[in-house]
Amino acid sequence: MDRLFNFSAGPGTLPVDVLEEAREEMLVYKDAGASIMEISHRSPQYTALAETTRQHFRDLLGMGEEWHILFLQGGASLQFYQTALNFLTPGVTGDYVVTGAWAEKALAEATLVGQARAVASSAETGHDHIPAAGAWDISDRAAYVHITSNNTIYGTQFQDDPIIDVPLVCDASSDFLSRPIDLERYGLIYAGAQKNIGPAGVTVVLVKDEFLKRIPDGLPTVLDYRTHASKLFHTPPVFSVYMVEKVLRWIKSCGSLADMKRRNDEKAALIYEQIDASEFYRGHARASARSNMNVTFNLPSAALESAFLKEAGDHGLVALKGHRSVGGIRASLYNACPREGVEALASFMQDFSERHG
Amino acid sequence: MDRLFNFSAGPGTLPVDVLEEAREEMLVYKDAGASIMEISHRSPQYTALAETTRQHFRDLLGMGEEWHILFLQGGASLQFYQTALNFLTPGVTGDYVVTGAWAEKALAEATLVGQARAVASSAETGHDHIPAAGAWDISDRAAYVHITSNNTIYGTQFQDDPIIDVPLVCDASSDFLSRPIDLERYGLIYAGAQKNIGPAGVTVVLVKDEFLKRIPDGLPTVLDYRTHASKLFHTPPVFSVYMVEKVLRWIKSCGSLADMKRRNDEKAALIYEQIDASEFYRGHARASARSNMNVTFNLPSAALESAFLKEAGDHGLVALKGHRSVGGIRASLYNACPREGVEALASFMQDFSERHG
Repeated sequence: MDRLFNFSAGPGTLPVDVLEEAREEMLVYKDAGASIMEISHRSPQYTALAETTRQHFRDLLGMGEEWHILFLQGGASLQFYQTALNFLTPGVTGDYVVTGAWAEKALAEATLVGQARAVASSAETGHDHIPAAGAWDISDRAAYVHITSNNTIYGTQFQDDPIIDVPLVCDASSDFLSRPIDLERYGLIYAGAQKNIGPAGVTVVLVKDEFLKRIPDGLPTVLDYRTHASKLFHTPPVFSVYMVEKVLRWIKSCGSLADMKRRNDEKAALIYEQIDASEFYRGHARASARSNMNVTFNLPSAALESAFLKEAGDHGLVALKGHRSVGGIRASLYNACPREGVEALASFMQDFSERHG
Repeated sequence: MDRLFNFSAGPGTLPVDVLEEAREEMLVYKDAGASIMEISHRSPQYTALAETTRQHFRDLLGMGEEWHILFLQGGASLQFYQTALNFLTPGVTGDYVVTGAWAEKALAEATLVGQARAVASSAETGHDHIPAAGAWDISDRAAYVHITSNNTIYGTQFQDDPIIDVPLVCDASSDFLSRPIDLERYGLIYAGAQKNIGPAGVTVVLVKDEFLKRIPDGLPTVLDYRTHASKLFHTPPVFSVYMVEKVLRWIKSCGSLADMKRRNDEKAALIYEQIDASEFYRGHARASARSNMNVTFNLPSAALESAFLKEAGDHGLVALKGHRSVGGIRASLYNACPREGVEALASFMQDFSERHG
């Protein structure tokens, strides 16, 4: 069987070059005499691999030594709790911008730890927009403001890094390394790898050294970010980190993160053009908040949506079903989603709307 | 470069057949049109894969539906905390049998949660034995007794499932599925995959349904075992689970877990015979507590140990350096470590001792 054009919302598609390289090395990694999965995480080979991976992050994000780069596990779901556990100390608030289901979950976990509050929400209009930063009700005692930079389910995305006086904590799981980040605004950024930078199994956490100093003593060792910032504490998810190294090398081969953003904007525009071309497709996100990662839209009827999914599949365009809370269609156009696949989808959309519109 | 005989203590060696199958499927998994890493964890393909993997566990362990099989992340280090968080509730004690460094860490994390106590320890004699269950100072209020079934650093192992009146919670990371388990004795068993059943990145937790009922409400969602027992909560470490499925299939192809224990006992005996043959090699573990997974021994001098490691490497026998807290040599003979490699090591040991003894 051949590879199809895969619009999965996550885990998402990976660059073919990366998979081919992994295939090549599956039985023996470099001079290890074993696969990367079979050697100690304290071996020279893994140590070098982790260091190279960190350097890729530094190069791509222009990130200095004041940032720690952690390869953790447990996904964003564990980070929802862990960020609060480390930073939502007595006397401060954790301020959450609720732009979707994941932000709601992050807030819910934080309320188990301390004084967490929603300072803005797009819930009333079905999370179709991003509340403007100027209107956020930030507390004077806010330790951080938590945002979700891209909302996979609803297809909305922060268009810029918000400018506020409090450090941002950001769940960047679904648009990490798809565009530049103004690191000055952030105290901590976390991202599950499985959308833009690798397979599931590793959660990348970027945390500023000065932010670490706020962490109280007495936390569970494995949940204290300082544990991982100071040393390789326990066995990391080796294969996932190994794949992230390859994906980051591939991103670099495409140019800068500004170049990657241009590529992603152009791909998304191909689909949004189809949505805007007629009344047939109805985008979920307001134009001002459109994501270039996840394009969400509905058709005039559920029957047409089913027909769309089936016919798309017949054309080798797969994993387009929308999340149950929005329904309809979701095309996820992560970094590694090839332009030719997006062109094929746009062309199919045009044809389908002409036949059924 | 060829594959070497790899005695890594973890991540450990994997069956070659498993790696070859993964290589074959690297670009396209079955009918998915994408690799296993690129498809949704709610896809029919991953759903079937996870179900097959669970069935392998049930088949190998003779495990009924009263047991839940969870694929978590964060390794044993997170389980040290998570087991206590779920079960060390007010009014009960968590009783720990301290047979090595990992048990000490488990106990330390539990003391952050509630009343955790050491009920036996082998520390005074350098963790060279397993304290007999009859002498454990178990509390009347013990919710569980925590054991570490095999101690990688010291090379000791419980020879049988302890018979006590309290449910065991067991860190089986380094001997899981290397031998049968009398499940009746246990409430919960956890194991990082990276020794005997797969690559790093997934932690398998077996938990009895009645044990789940003890968990209090109000825990962080992702750390509450019930979250994962009731549904697929969040993105699992897909590739690691995928590899575990293959390794378990390979284990089944070798016979029952009793067969696997026989294989492992025979392999370990080849090395212990060398240790017992002369005064040249000095085993760390007492004979009554010897592990068939990690064989630890010293040579008459540090200089000879260095020479041993170097010459072994020249013979393609690698990753034999002992843990810093014991020093010397450690040969890890996990399930997938081939008998021919162990024979080569035994033969090298004999030759080396004859030349230097």
